[in-house]
Amino acid sequence: MNFSRHLAAVQTRANSLICVGLDTDPAKLPRLLQGHEDSVVEFNRRIIEATADCVCAYKLNLAFYEAAGVRGYDMLRRTLSFIPDGIITIGDAKRGDIGNTAAMYARELLTDLGFHATTVNPYMGFDSVEPFLRDPERGAFILAVTSNPGARDFQYLKVGAHPLYERVIRKARSWDTNGNCGLVVGATRPRELRRIRALAPAMPILIPGIGAQGGDLKSAVRYGCTRDGLLAVVNAGRSILYASEGDDYADAARRVTTGLRDEVNRYRAAYFPPRR
Amino acid sequence: MNFSRHLAAVQTRANSLICVGLDTDPAKLPRLLQGHEDSVVEFNRRIIEATADCVCAYKLNLAFYEAAGVRGYDMLRRTLSFIPDGIITIGDAKRGDIGNTAAMYARELLTDLGFHATTVNPYMGFDSVEPFLRDPERGAFILAVTSNPGARDFQYLKVGAHPLYERVIRKARSWDTNGNCGLVVGATRPRELRRIRALAPAMPILIPGIGAQGGDLKSAVRYGCTRDGLLAVVNAGRSILYASEGDDYADAARRVTTGLRDEVNRYRAAYFPPRR
Repeated sequence: MNFSRHLAAVQTRANSLICVGLDTDPAKLPRLLQGHEDSVVEFNRRIIEATADCVCAYKLNLAFYEAAGVRGYDMLRRTLSFIPDGIITIGDAKRGDIGNTAAMYARELLTDLGFHATTVNPYMGFDSVEPFLRDPERGAFILAVTSNPGARDFQYLKVGAHPLYERVIRKARSWDTNGNCGLVVGATRPRELRRIRALAPAMPILIPGIGAQGGDLKSAVRYGCTRDGLLAVVNAGRSILYASEGDDYADAARRVTTGLRDEVNRYRAAYFPPRR
Repeated sequence: MNFSRHLAAVQTRANSLICVGLDTDPAKLPRLLQGHEDSVVEFNRRIIEATADCVCAYKLNLAFYEAAGVRGYDMLRRTLSFIPDGIITIGDAKRGDIGNTAAMYARELLTDLGFHATTVNPYMGFDSVEPFLRDPERGAFILAVTSNPGARDFQYLKVGAHPLYERVIRKARSWDTNGNCGLVVGATRPRELRRIRALAPAMPILIPGIGAQGGDLKSAVRYGCTRDGLLAVVNAGRSILYASEGDDYADAARRVTTGLRDEVNRYRAAYFPPRR
């Protein structure tokens, strides 16, 4: 099954579009875990245990693991081992390099670490992206419009009548011959999201920036979903991981996650009512 | 001393603009080393020993080390430990992420691993680049025009009258308040290199693509150098590392490196004669 269909199936079965960003910062762990060896892994294990039945995906930003140096790779592998089968794993690496080097990154992320999907930076063009799209079962989310302030520096520059990010989307569509290419559009960009969903009606869209970054959840659902109310992957990280500073962090994370899931599902029911 | 001045001083003292790309592929090691534990590190050690007095820099592409999984980080550290003081080390990581995440990558590369400089992808804009420029002694080479075929997909798109990469260069100049911002321009792009040097007369330019990728060495020097015949960092990887398949690989690497250095220096003497 290609990645897009797999994602839709997982979202349907889980009845959730929520992705938890496991971007775990050792400095923000509850006091209970501080000093504890493997504290990040233990924290992740409990977050996953508490949220796995209310999400469609987990996203791990590689930076947070590489920061731990030689131990980081092991932390990543062990965290991945706690994620139950049937849930999508996204390696948020934003890599982009010439073809032979991109192939090494793709092998590391998709084969060695076994992520179902990655994020990819488009600036270096097709041969830098293609290795991430070669296996139809593995997805690549191409950065289109990001949630950060710097997005305005280049992504919005007009190329002819349209912003650069639209060129990225048109290229990404042309690259999507395997049904496994997606896009990244920040939740802080609702107008752009609407336009992008119109340009790419069937592609998965990873939508970070909910929660700590202040993105708008209703717009993320309304403008991010396909006509079936699927394929928007709504990511929240800090607002879930650090929902409580106390020892009840896992329960608090679950409460926030189920709350987000239910709110998303209310918007899905309103904007994408089941067809009869 | 800021990074640009440091680089110029190293190049002057070494009388070399050559950078060796230590992108060591375990599958391409001489038979002598295959199966040898730590074969990549041993290979790198001998390459460094054989070339350190004829280069200004070594560039390590992170992909080649991350591919080794949990051992990769250790291989990277040990390889770096063999590089003598006074030679520039470049972590070719091409990272680009939102501000707080970019800061984690910057800490990993510049503080924990201790690279003097990194390569950075500009697509996400200022806050994704700024953490790499915060310390004036550490450099960031921003991808402008890359050496691969996919460069044409976005980098050349016209924004108003000029290609996108020119906007990247103008932005990079405006970000260069610490004298530590450089550019990446592929050696396969001599015309663009000439134009870029005119737009950025004093910035370091990292020029990959010499050797295996077929870039033009004479143009790299003629168009890549500042008026003092400096600040072009001419990178060759595969053509040096795999100059011989036999046990004499280190000697062969030295011959190719000194050959490149001398050829570059002839072009420097021709195009940038010492001023009286």
